[in-house]
Formats: sequence, structure tokens, C-alpha cells
Amino acid sequence: MIQIFTMKNCILLFLLISFTNASGQQKTIQERLGYPKKTKLLIIHADDLGVSHSENMASIHAMEKGVVSSASIMVPCPWFPEIAAYAKSHPDADLGLHLTLTSEWKLYKWGPVTPHDKVSSLLDERGYLNETTGAFLKKAKPEDVEKELRSQIERAKQFGIDPTHFDGHMAAPISSPDFLQILLKLGREYKVPVHVGKQFSQLFGFDFGKYITEKDIDVDRTIMASGADYKRGLDNFYTEQIKSLQPGLNVLLLHAAYDNEEMQAVTVQYVDFGATWRQHDVNFFTSEKCKKLLADEKIKVITWREVRDKIIR
Amino acid sequence: MIQIFTMKNCILLFLLISFTNASGQQKTIQERLGYPKKTKLLIIHADDLGVSHSENMASIHAMEKGVVSSASIMVPCPWFPEIAAYAKSHPDADLGLHLTLTSEWKLYKWGPVTPHDKVSSLLDERGYLNETTGAFLKKAKPEDVEKELRSQIERAKQFGIDPTHFDGHMAAPISSPDFLQILLKLGREYKVPVHVGKQFSQLFGFDFGKYITEKDIDVDRTIMASGADYKRGLDNFYTEQIKSLQPGLNVLLLHAAYDNEEMQAVTVQYVDFGATWRQHDVNFFTSEKCKKLLADEKIKVITWREVRDKIIR
Repeated sequence: MIQIFTMKNCILLFLLISFTNASGQQKTIQERLGYPKKTKLLIIHADDLGVSHSENMASIHAMEKGVVSSASIMVPCPWFPEIAAYAKSHPDADLGLHLTLTSEWKLYKWGPVTPHDKVSSLLDERGYLNETTGAFLKKAKPEDVEKELRSQIERAKQFGIDPTHFDGHMAAPISSPDFLQILLKLGREYKVPVHVGKQFSQLFGFDFGKYITEKDIDVDRTIMASGADYKRGLDNFYTEQIKSLQPGLNVLLLHAAYDNEEMQAVTVQYVDFGATWRQHDVNFFTSEKCKKLLADEKIKVITWREVRDKIIR
Repeated sequence: MIQIFTMKNCILLFLLISFTNASGQQKTIQERLGYPKKTKLLIIHADDLGVSHSENMASIHAMEKGVVSSASIMVPCPWFPEIAAYAKSHPDADLGLHLTLTSEWKLYKWGPVTPHDKVSSLLDERGYLNETTGAFLKKAKPEDVEKELRSQIERAKQFGIDPTHFDGHMAAPISSPDFLQILLKLGREYKVPVHVGKQFSQLFGFDFGKYITEKDIDVDRTIMASGADYKRGLDNFYTEQIKSLQPGLNVLLLHAAYDNEEMQAVTVQYVDFGATWRQHDVNFFTSEKCKKLLADEKIKVITWREVRDKIIR
């Protein structure tokens, strides 16, 4: 018997498992997707598509030749039309929107999709989106955030993209309760799963779980390498993460680009998430070692489209 | 005796030689700059700075190591902050503004600097600047052109650039009498010489000379390779042009970029002004052959700054 799940206490706020199985227990997301309860599901996800030609080419390579199963696109970026053309000619590619409220690099910038004067609280003093999530948080008005996120979604649709999911670049769209609620509302409206990433709850000092309802998708664990992990070696980090993966819906975030002149110039002055880091990500997630590891650990790699089409739509 | 020159007939409209010498004859621009009348002056000018990292790096190389004496910057482009930082740290570099009202490449786009809804007549249906000068001409309103050109100039100033000259990307800012008058007015207002390029008069079907006054700078000849010249070989074209150069103020326009992945992707689907063409330009204008040719032909290579500071300011 399938019933609507009723939340009973605060701990349950973290759950978005909304159905019960025949024995009355809540169904896991694995079960709702048609897998046994013990299945270790993993979405291997490349962020930042559209930011540069290098990022586009390397991400496509990592999806077509490697194990990367999903990726998301930054609509305000200069190379958005290139990845949009790819999305249109590859309708099976699992591409969502990496909703973007910041422009982080030093010498290579973009502004909002909305006319600048309609979202002035999102801009730095030069008319670009702010460089950091901190600067964004200081003055962004929720109405401007909603306007800009809608503009990005509508532009993507205009370019023929039917996004498989939404997520937020540099966590800016989930950095306050107001913004998170806007993002979740847009996900429900466009019938697209939103990847929130609960690990950011602590960083921004509020409980994401409070806003995730049974209509949304709650990822069990989001994995992303930190600067410290990079220093210790990304190969080791990813290997450990894959070996210790638990049953449930897991998302591993990476950033694929070639370590070439363009990407070195985009990421100039940065070590973290720089060109070399991104090349490491390409290398690992297109390696035979990684493929074997996933098989050995019996990890089921899935896409956001599968989640969207089986649960949301 | 120096007198203010009074125009007497239509032919003289083409002239902007505004002073007479001791014998009562009009002074040539060479003489006004302090050179003998027979001097062959040449500004060797790279267009399109800011469009890509490749273009920025190759243009800087061609200026620092080659004979390129001047260049102009596209303010709305993504890599504008990179070349603006160079301009700020190299105050002697001869850098003007390549005022931009089009966004010509297929998969890599930019919009206006002004808020989009304030210059809607300049936009394509996706909110970018139009792809061609033809599409721009069909619907651009003069008030929007003026707003956008002012926005670009003001943003350049905000980034610390003191432009040595103005010119127009893809000739859009000189493609109608209204637009040309706006461009010339802005040049006078900011005390910056405007490079008009009289050879475009025929293309746009109106007489540029009618609008060039004694307050402006009239270049005797503008040289730029066409698609046909490219097919016959750029080396031959530039060699012939340099060998046949006449006394007066000449401007040679080129486009310097490296034939690398980034530039190939920017110019994808284009042969004319594509990555290979731009690499040829770099090669020729950094070659010993070119340096020797300029010396053999007794050509005096000058900058727009010299023109600006000796005549306009």
C-alpha cells in the first residue's frame, strides 16, 4: 500500500523519502527508482559547463569516453552557446543547469542574463556578477535572485535545452533560506530535481532539511574534493570515496577541463579548482582504474534524468 | 602664419588638414605631426583585443616583439578584464577602443555593456549583440547606439584605460550617417582621434567625408586584407602594400591571435578572419622580413597616441 508520508519529528525533516513500501516502512530512494535497498547509486557529475571551450570539450570527453554520467551548464557564460548546441544535437546527454550567481575568475568575467538594472543587487561595482559567494550573500535581494534564475532557465529553454536537474554554482543559490526556497520552488515548477548538497548546511549556518519536502529529491551524500584533498592527491581521494560508498543516492561532483592555455588563463591566480586540478579530474574519470573500481565495488552509476523521469515527472 | 582653414567646396570636405604652412598651402597631416611632407607614416594596428585569451596574448606579443604599434580593445567581450589589466600595467602601450555593436561568432557570444532592456534595438532574439553588421543596421536606433558606445567608453575608463583612439568593430559604428556622427561626436568629446576608414564609404553608400570636420583626423589610406587577398597569400599582400605605400597617414589593420584550440573554437565555421589567418598576421608582423621591408621603404611607424597628443589634445 502506498501512502503519503507524514513527517513526525525533526529528524525526519531531513528525509524526502515520501512513500512507504508494502510492509509499511519508508521506501528508500533506491527502491523508488526500482533498485534493491542495498544499491549504491552514484551520479558522477561534472560542474561548470559553458565556462570555457576547454571545460566544454573536456566534460564532453569525460561523459562520452569516461564514467561521468551527468553535468550541468552555466547559462550566463560566454561559451554557453557551444554547449547548448551540443545539448541540442545530443538529446540523450544528461545535462542540467548549474545556476550561476557569481563570476569568480580574475580576468575573465560574465554578467547576469537579466538586464543589469533589473538585478542590480547581484552585481559588483563593474556590472559583473560578484566574485565570491560571500560578496553575493552580503547584498543579493531574493527578488533579484528569483528573476535571474528564471532568466537563466528561460534562456536555456530558448536554446532547446530540457534540463535534467538544477544545481547551484559555488553554492550561491543555496546560501540562505530565502534563496534555497526559490531554487526548490523553481525545481517544482519546472518539474526538475534540485541537487541541494546537504553538506553545505553547516557552512551557511541553517538547516537545509527544513526546506526539503517530499516533493523534492534528497541526495544521501554529496562528495566533492577540497583543497586539502587536492594536496593529498585526487586519485587517492576519489579511490577512497568510491571504496567507502554507502547504499543510497550519492553524487560525486568534479570539474573537467584540459590543462591548456585557455584554462590556465581563466583560472589564473588560483590553485584550487585550477586548470591542473581539472585535468586530474578528466584523467581519473576516464581511466580504466576508475571503471574497474566502480565495477569491483558494485556501484550503479545513474543519471539525473533517471531520477527526474522516474520520480519527478 | 597659422590660420583656421575655411572649407571652400565639396572636394575640400574630404580634407581635414586644418592649418596652412608659411607659404599659404595646407599643411599635410605629416607636417602637422612634425614630419617632412614626403613621409610615409604608418600605424600598424591590431583589432579585436579582449575577444579571447589567444587574441590578447598574440596581440601583446606582436606589439612587444613585432612591429605592431597600436591596437584596440573590445569592451563587451569576456576577456576584456585581462587586456584592461595589461593596459593599466603598461601605460605606454598604444591601446584604443574597438567600439563593438556586433557579436559575430557562432558558439561564443557577448551582450552589450548597457542593461539589455535599455538598448533593445541592438540585440538579437537571444539578447546578444547581432551577429552581422547587416542585422545590426536593420533595426539599431541611434539613441541606443550612443548609449552603448558611451557605456563602453565609461567602462574602459572605470578599468583605468585612457584610450589613444576609437574605431569601430566590423564597421558597425560607421555604417550609417547617424552612427558615424555619434562616433565622431564622442571622439571630440573625449578628445580622442577616431579612425573612420574612408574605404567603407562605398560599402555603406554615403559620403563619410561629409561628416569629417577639421576637428577630426582623416586617415589618407586604410589597408586591410580581404578574403581574396588571404587566398592569394597574406605575405604577398602585406609586402605589396608596404612597397607601394604613399606619403601621408596610413593605417594597416590586422588581427593577431594564435592558431590554437581556443581561437579555432571561437572562429569555428569561418575561414575569413579565422584562427589560421590571425596566426599568419602574427607571423608576418613579428618577422625580420617585415622589419627590413619597413626600413628599406623608409616607412615611419607611428602610434595613435602621437596623433592624439600632437593634434587632438
